[in-house]
Amino acid sequence: MRTDPTAIIDLVSATMTPRRPTIGVFDSGFGGLTVLKALLELIPDADYLYFGDTARLPYGSKSVETVARYAVEAAHYLENHGAELLVIACNTATALALDRIIGAAHVPVVGVVEPGAGAAASVSKNRKVVVIGTEATVSSHAYRKALEARGVEAREKACPLLVPLVEEGWVEHGVTEEVARIYLGEAFADGFGDADVLVLGCTHYPLLKPLLRRVAPEHVSIVDSAESTARAVAERLQKLLTHERKDEERRRLPRIKFFATDSVEKFRRLGERFLGRAIEDVRHVDLKE
Amino acid sequence: MRTDPTAIIDLVSATMTPRRPTIGVFDSGFGGLTVLKALLELIPDADYLYFGDTARLPYGSKSVETVARYAVEAAHYLENHGAELLVIACNTATALALDRIIGAAHVPVVGVVEPGAGAAASVSKNRKVVVIGTEATVSSHAYRKALEARGVEAREKACPLLVPLVEEGWVEHGVTEEVARIYLGEAFADGFGDADVLVLGCTHYPLLKPLLRRVAPEHVSIVDSAESTARAVAERLQKLLTHERKDEERRRLPRIKFFATDSVEKFRRLGERFLGRAIEDVRHVDLKE
Repeated sequence: MRTDPTAIIDLVSATMTPRRPTIGVFDSGFGGLTVLKALLELIPDADYLYFGDTARLPYGSKSVETVARYAVEAAHYLENHGAELLVIACNTATALALDRIIGAAHVPVVGVVEPGAGAAASVSKNRKVVVIGTEATVSSHAYRKALEARGVEAREKACPLLVPLVEEGWVEHGVTEEVARIYLGEAFADGFGDADVLVLGCTHYPLLKPLLRRVAPEHVSIVDSAESTARAVAERLQKLLTHERKDEERRRLPRIKFFATDSVEKFRRLGERFLGRAIEDVRHVDLKE
Repeated sequence: MRTDPTAIIDLVSATMTPRRPTIGVFDSGFGGLTVLKALLELIPDADYLYFGDTARLPYGSKSVETVARYAVEAAHYLENHGAELLVIACNTATALALDRIIGAAHVPVVGVVEPGAGAAASVSKNRKVVVIGTEATVSSHAYRKALEARGVEAREKACPLLVPLVEEGWVEHGVTEEVARIYLGEAFADGFGDADVLVLGCTHYPLLKPLLRRVAPEHVSIVDSAESTARAVAERLQKLLTHERKDEERRRLPRIKFFATDSVEKFRRLGERFLGRAIEDVRHVDLKE
């Protein structure tokens, strides 16, 4: 059932007039906008559809069955609206439901866990890594499995307060620093003092990067799975996009459409904090509950 | 469309063998269990159905349309399973959707806002009250309207971090105390230093009552809308239940059935913290999304 990820490249290469691919980005809410931000920087010559399942967020505290059902619905929605490649820009959905999404989708699917684990493994000298994420991501042990497959030992630590702290806007707040100190203190204790990489296993966490940099042990490198994922997508598409493309086509700015299952106004307002730019074209989606 | 709240009492009074009424309690998740707990203490001679929409929680950050749709679905579910009176044990659902629920239901409906506002008004000597709640509850101004109708001035303050802190289990934690100090400091500032009541406008907050008691100004009384609501329901039913009831029927322990839209195991585990007793009969509900 796994669609060959090179299929889209072949498809586009085969046409005489290379087209801009449409990339569908999916998240439970706003966090995936940090992945979209990285994608826009690395792959400006593509168009984007972003789906935020804001009526049902957060996924991080929910069960496998529920998250898988929600994620597959969103994947189908994006496909039906023209996405030729799907980026599951949500660690929880990737960790709990990537196989189910791949099985249900008709286009290639990229998750955030493999790129994040790959980047961590390439950076870790001590072969020991700490991953922070939501309760659901940690319970799935998706990162541990991906890292152990690369010969790296992993400790996964659930940090359920960090998402609400980011959404409260307290990204440089004393309370957030204290919470991070407690969580990281526990994560780097008991045999993981020599772990040398901290993986941000939730797409909300890049907003806390400066704070986490201060709180994490000095010898630790921070790996942002949002950035790693954008690079993984870029690697798949980049070769194609720098070839056979008319200049005027390459220079056009990306078209970005946003879909949200809860309030459009709130998506616009909160989303700009994650994307770092104005959000305009947001449509409300009702998934027929 | 408003069903007469005395209808159920008439119905039960009319039968020759008085029955135990079945009370349906609805919340987005676990918080409503604090209301159920108060109901069980005040009205032990009834049976209960509890519906927690855990797959779609939290409601506190969502829009009116979304919350109303979810709440009406849950109300119908409880009615269809035999509830003769509905308690909307969720401040957000009450604040945003009580009229819609009353319009859609065929049995009497009791929300948490009116009882909470009534209790606050009866306690406040200075006619000035602070209400804390979720973002959605505060934006609706349901408490302010209900208090102003009673001649009481109200400041509403959104405290979005308190729910995740309770769910993390940090009910007596230094971080929670600091967060509460920040929120209450802002709430009781600028002309509200002489407010003499603090309304807990979210069913998660009763778990923080000892901590909030320490942090709130000394002269302030704390009104728990969970308790007030239980009293409002009790007042409607109590008269009936102490009359015409066979002793053996009165003495039987309440039957309680729980329904959850997300993981049953998680509901059992987390729910016990809110209810203060073991949770056994939980069924998974799929609302056909």
